[in-house]
Amino acid sequence: MKLHRIVSHLGITLTMVLLAYVGATLGSPARAQTVDRLSSWNDGKAKQSIIDFVTQVTKPGSPDFVPPAERIAVFDNDGTLWSEQPMYFQLLFALDRVKALAPQHPEWKDQEPFASLLKGDVKAALAGGEHAILDIIMTTHAGNTTAEFEQIVKDWISSARHPTSKRPYTDMVYQPMLEMLGYLRANGFKTFIVSGGGIEFMRPWAEGVYGVPPEQVIGSSIKVKYEMRDGEPVLVRLPELDFFDDKEGKPVAIHQQIGRRPLAAFGNSDGDLQMLQWTTAGKGPRFALYVHHTDAEREWAYDRESSFGRLDKGLDEAHAKGWTVVDMKRDWKVIHPHEKDQQ
Amino acid sequence: MKLHRIVSHLGITLTMVLLAYVGATLGSPARAQTVDRLSSWNDGKAKQSIIDFVTQVTKPGSPDFVPPAERIAVFDNDGTLWSEQPMYFQLLFALDRVKALAPQHPEWKDQEPFASLLKGDVKAALAGGEHAILDIIMTTHAGNTTAEFEQIVKDWISSARHPTSKRPYTDMVYQPMLEMLGYLRANGFKTFIVSGGGIEFMRPWAEGVYGVPPEQVIGSSIKVKYEMRDGEPVLVRLPELDFFDDKEGKPVAIHQQIGRRPLAAFGNSDGDLQMLQWTTAGKGPRFALYVHHTDAEREWAYDRESSFGRLDKGLDEAHAKGWTVVDMKRDWKVIHPHEKDQQ
Repeated sequence: MKLHRIVSHLGITLTMVLLAYVGATLGSPARAQTVDRLSSWNDGKAKQSIIDFVTQVTKPGSPDFVPPAERIAVFDNDGTLWSEQPMYFQLLFALDRVKALAPQHPEWKDQEPFASLLKGDVKAALAGGEHAILDIIMTTHAGNTTAEFEQIVKDWISSARHPTSKRPYTDMVYQPMLEMLGYLRANGFKTFIVSGGGIEFMRPWAEGVYGVPPEQVIGSSIKVKYEMRDGEPVLVRLPELDFFDDKEGKPVAIHQQIGRRPLAAFGNSDGDLQMLQWTTAGKGPRFALYVHHTDAEREWAYDRESSFGRLDKGLDEAHAKGWTVVDMKRDWKVIHPHEKDQQ
Repeated sequence: MKLHRIVSHLGITLTMVLLAYVGATLGSPARAQTVDRLSSWNDGKAKQSIIDFVTQVTKPGSPDFVPPAERIAVFDNDGTLWSEQPMYFQLLFALDRVKALAPQHPEWKDQEPFASLLKGDVKAALAGGEHAILDIIMTTHAGNTTAEFEQIVKDWISSARHPTSKRPYTDMVYQPMLEMLGYLRANGFKTFIVSGGGIEFMRPWAEGVYGVPPEQVIGSSIKVKYEMRDGEPVLVRLPELDFFDDKEGKPVAIHQQIGRRPLAAFGNSDGDLQMLQWTTAGKGPRFALYVHHTDAEREWAYDRESSFGRLDKGLDEAHAKGWTVVDMKRDWKVIHPHEKDQQ
């Protein structure tokens, strides 16, 4: 083999390597990357449906090809990316905040819902439903600057433990969904969280845990106010709801903050139903997936009757419309990342 | 040279090429890309200040190095990325909408500000200031679905002409600022628009004109409502202000929607002052730039007394704090892209 032929041959190889790299970077490989990316998923209908969808929209030349800029995937958080039992983790954070702040608020002893919370009667405090929950959260979350609150969340998330598993809350994320986020990103999707949870509760750790940067974390929020303190600008958190990102709020937030209809949506409760409806009503191929909590042994089993993450209307609509329903017990080899380490 | 040495040598070359490619992709080249990217900028203090800043935060190993994920740059739109005289272009759009909708609204003949607008007395209609302007815009913009409105904007932006230049409005963007957007993106920055203008007025064309995707366009908004029409979900635009993204609203929107303090902020008016304050109050190197409209011949010359894009307090603060102030007449070789084609 002559030198120029070797060089020429290596040149072609170089070109191919570069093209493969460019393809992976731009997220438009010839076929969807699959096997190793979804290794915690058992083979079956659920896994196959997402692979088929991603292959369909990323295959160059396909009539269903979607340019990378339009590949938006939205994920609910509580019950979809991490657990939400025995109650939303942000609510557990709020309860810890009530205890921490109680000495500065003697009036809470006679004031609901704090009185009940301080007596340990969470059920009574939460009797007002989801809006009551959010009110408790907002009230206990306000009064400080955004920088102070960020530090409070960081301290809590790195030290608090889940009441039954005794693990850090960030260990309670779902390994198969982490793989799903990575799989979609490897195929050129931009992944967003669209959660009923608070943006300032999720952002301090969402990037490290999910690989989702703050600007792609959409959620509920309280109002903040810009003001000068000693010549330095601060944003002060007010005890006033700004936006409740649940149910009809989810498509609204997606429109206002993303401005593009998602190609794919992932949820686990009736609170995600409108987001899945809005996503699948778009033209061309769309994908909707519900995580169905069916594993009482490794996680929790609940759906139509649950106070947190109720899945009732959504389950009916998913079956009627042929959306993907993940049976956690059957479809997921492991639930949480630490189980994978133990395998 | 023996074969294995050639292969080894080429292997090193391959590695270098790949590294260079990765560097360019991740936006962390050894030194900031400069000359060709800012070719419409005259050499001088303004151009040098941005080059120095970008070099400082992108140089690997530098104590001021900032990871690409944190390289956020925010741009005002009206008067910063495109012209805003004789009035905000969205207001000219609103006036066209009033005329188009008038036959369906006979009551407008006796109802301000529409009566004045229909008589051609724009000044009387706008006497209520910026909030009045936004009210006019919001009212004329509401009532349809988001999909319908998007089409209205697309039709207008592709057919309407500026009253004095007689050019399409998208020709009235600033060539040096297009280069600035590209220069920052080439250096790993994520570029956002943070404008007092409406998100749904900007998004239909911002990606094509500025390379800024919808999810990075932040602005004022009206409320939208999710509802089902004939079994299909739609978002209906309500005649109610959701958020006014000006002055103190800009740092608030940046916090709520980006969740990270920008490294660099670009504006042209007092409405951008809080955004520049918030940006520069962050730790480490930050960059703030004001576009000062000084070119009555090629564009417009205005500052402290202008109804649109008043720059008064901001100009004083910029001088006091040493922010970059662009003198359009002196610093920009060309203003609009078509002038470049004519060179």
